[in-house]
Amino acid sequence: MRYELYYWPSTPGRGEFVRLALEEGDADYVDVARRKGGMAKMMRLLNGARAPHPAFAPPILKSGPLVIAQTANILLYLGRRLGLAPTGEAGMLWTHQLQLTIADFVDEIHDTHHPIASSLYYEDQKREAGRRAEDFRKNRLPKYLGYFERVLDRNPQGPRYLVGARTTYADLSMFEIVSGLRYAFPRSLARAARRCPHLVALHERIGDRPRIAAYLASDRRLPYDQVGIFRHYRELDG
Amino acid sequence: MRYELYYWPSTPGRGEFVRLALEEGDADYVDVARRKGGMAKMMRLLNGARAPHPAFAPPILKSGPLVIAQTANILLYLGRRLGLAPTGEAGMLWTHQLQLTIADFVDEIHDTHHPIASSLYYEDQKREAGRRAEDFRKNRLPKYLGYFERVLDRNPQGPRYLVGARTTYADLSMFEIVSGLRYAFPRSLARAARRCPHLVALHERIGDRPRIAAYLASDRRLPYDQVGIFRHYRELDG
Repeated sequence: MRYELYYWPSTPGRGEFVRLALEEGDADYVDVARRKGGMAKMMRLLNGARAPHPAFAPPILKSGPLVIAQTANILLYLGRRLGLAPTGEAGMLWTHQLQLTIADFVDEIHDTHHPIASSLYYEDQKREAGRRAEDFRKNRLPKYLGYFERVLDRNPQGPRYLVGARTTYADLSMFEIVSGLRYAFPRSLARAARRCPHLVALHERIGDRPRIAAYLASDRRLPYDQVGIFRHYRELDG
Repeated sequence: MRYELYYWPSTPGRGEFVRLALEEGDADYVDVARRKGGMAKMMRLLNGARAPHPAFAPPILKSGPLVIAQTANILLYLGRRLGLAPTGEAGMLWTHQLQLTIADFVDEIHDTHHPIASSLYYEDQKREAGRRAEDFRKNRLPKYLGYFERVLDRNPQGPRYLVGARTTYADLSMFEIVSGLRYAFPRSLARAARRCPHLVALHERIGDRPRIAAYLASDRRLPYDQVGIFRHYRELDG
């Protein structure tokens, strides 16, 4: 069965967390909005007058009759299907808990450049962004990275994976977080990473996995930019 | 089996979404941090040196050997246990998708008074809060409420519940959202509510459910305040 992913075609954004799972899981999928006529199809899915399960925002995954939105929810579903999460309840919940904490982290990364309103340009909230980014660099970034480093450190099966002894969607999402931060906050990340050797090693290990490496080298992987979650503004990096 | 809920004892906050599910589900539970010595117990759970599944933040639910964090994740678990979610995969995912959108809404409500840093006082980010709250009133509040009104309107089983024809944890959380907004943004909510008759009716219906009504009248229900998510600052309500 072919999955259909719907996400803004111009930026990796939250869609990237889903793409990484589809790629590592060797899933047959179409990145709909990046195809000709795909944006119109996505807008119909978002604004369709009678869909019984409307989505608030992309990403959206169509899988047969199912239409699933919310990044972490899509990964909860794909984790089972693609063997990217434990099958038992305890492991399933723990993996999802980590993903939801990653989602909170993503929101805070986004808000460093948009602390006032997503509907305004960065330039219209630059002063506030400066204040928020300062708190992010000093408090939030070290707190989140320290937390995930601790999770790796305490994994009873060793620090190679966030959960157990196999790759889960949480590892793939953590790869994306480190990649994105390396682009957006290179100085701050380099400083924080000194205390997070397990996270740095996880990032390298995931990037070296054959399917992920092939994906990263392909044109299916979108470059980071200045419209998505991870944006590089030198003045915000301290 | 007795559930243990761990959450800050001074404010409803995110713990309230869990409490409402426990109450409606007639669960045997202890609100640990509100008991004598409970705060110390919660801090040990948060900072314990060797816990294999550390939590980033409360709320945390202990259920036998399971230690579960992240509000939506706790509700995913309790939904199954307490009969507050459909048992089939499609219904389970749809309920969870709504809960994750509620979680995003909660984050945005919080950030109206704390757009710069949780670690600073409101007074230290009052100017920025004014700008963010203006965007919230004009754009985000109507967008979120309009979305959930649409979900009720499109429910093939009628507009009485968000999912199907029975109360789910998403309905209980939506009750809490409307209650909290009525406290924090009374003018803005009153204005927006005119376009959301199904949501207003859902709020009343949930508040009238026997177990919820008994809970609301008890001292287990904490009042809203000026330290939690829902805070009333007249200047932010437009």
